[in-house]
Amino acid sequence: MSDSLLQLRDALRAFAAERDWDQFHSPRNLATALSVEAAELLEPFQWLTDEQSRNLSLETRAAVEEELADVLLYLVRLADQLGVDLVAAGRAKIKRNAQKYPVEKARGSSRKYDAI
Amino acid sequence: MSDSLLQLRDALRAFAAERDWDQFHSPRNLATALSVEAAELLEPFQWLTDEQSRNLSLETRAAVEEELADVLLYLVRLADQLGVDLVAAGRAKIKRNAQKYPVEKARGSSRKYDAI
Amino acid sequence: MSDSLLQLRDALRAFAAERDWDQFHSPRNLATALSVEAAELLEPFQWLTDEQSRNLSLETRAAVEEELADVLLYLVRLADQLGVDLVAAGRAKIKRNAQKYPVEKARGSSRKYDAI
Amino acid sequence: MSDSLLQLRDALRAFAAERDWDQFHSPRNLATALSVEAAELLEPFQWLTDEQSRNLSLETRAAVEEELADVLLYLVRLADQLGVDLVAAGRAKIKRNAQKYPVEKARGSSRKYDAI
Repeated sequence: MSDSLLQLRDALRAFAAERDWDQFHSPRNLATALSVEAAELLEPFQWLTDEQSRNLSLETRAAVEEELADVLLYLVRLADQLGVDLVAAGRAKIKRNAQKYPVEKARGSSRKYDAI
Repeated sequence: MSDSLLQLRDALRAFAAERDWDQFHSPRNLATALSVEAAELLEPFQWLTDEQSRNLSLETRAAVEEELADVLLYLVRLADQLGVDLVAAGRAKIKRNAQKYPVEKARGSSRKYDAI
Repeated sequence: MSDSLLQLRDALRAFAAERDWDQFHSPRNLATALSVEAAELLEPFQWLTDEQSRNLSLETRAAVEEELADVLLYLVRLADQLGVDLVAAGRAKIKRNAQKYPVEKARGSSRKYDAI
Repeated sequence: MSDSLLQLRDALRAFAAERDWDQFHSPRNLATALSVEAAELLEPFQWLTDEQSRNLSLETRAAVEEELADVLLYLVRLADQLGVDLVAAGRAKIKRNAQKYPVEKARGSSRKYDAI
């Protein structure tokens, strides 16, 4: 994992330890919280067109930025509790996706598409 | 953002560009996909107790690792499309949470709790 | 609640009782499962335009119908465990929404909009 | 579909027509909104134990009831837009589940379990 993510991981560990919150941070609870935050991130987009979503107001963008942060924090915390190296997992997934969606077949088609 | 996340961001940019997928990667679509992936990450935990979720089988853990990667990739891609620095946003959120949940009040209580 | 929903409720009660599954059907678990199913319902729509989503293929429509059923069943089961009359709650919510979104102000605007 | 659900369906049709909101009620948008509401329903449960979730405070229960209503309304509206008979779909799903989880094999086991 990268240095910056390691720093976030360590900050979250300290945050939970100081508040005696490890008892609440089971993987199940963290996965639930992450899913709730992901929906809060989706919420401001739900009635926008694609075009509108590319041109958010400053107010909406600020709210979205905070939800992005929430998802990141739960993601880092959950990966930590499970002993997963997030960046390594992300790199491995990009490789698998490159094999699953070869450039020549996937170009411009959302048919084949179900991942980044 | 950290070097490793920047590398992931650049890899995802190249991946989308080669396949002409930027047209599908509106913030709205990416937020939707992220939310769907977060639910896929939650799915293996849904009937587990907290205790069981701390002791996943190797098979389940491998599946969870892949879902963590999917969430990370959409998160990095969405932040990129919105011009958000994820790590900076995460750090800022930890600071706000420290003010919202002071150690002396929050210790051992999930009552006050609605964020990391 | 309507007769048909009462019949579904009773069928789900019998289904769980026969399998000794009430132990797993805590409101928390059911709310989690409902959320996972709602994401599975969203999944086939995630890369479609609004227009495409109004013209599903027969295959996609059949898959969507099954996900609609899953959401309904968890919803009925969760309401039953909590002693909530779904239809009465739905009617009450429509009344509140009518006050929240008066016709003359809400016409044709998704701005004001965050509920049915 | 049952009479009560038909009444809700008709009330939602009238509600949307009066406000000229059919333009926003594409299946994709409604599936997104349903998923967001399902997460709002999950939110009050996210830090509760199973036991706590069976004994909600009156305040939490009232909030949960409103979220149940929101999910129901989007579900009825989405099914209407797709021409799906919800109750018939629910009955069919219970039959399939009975075959998938025969009583003698499924009794007391959440292993086999991934549906109601």
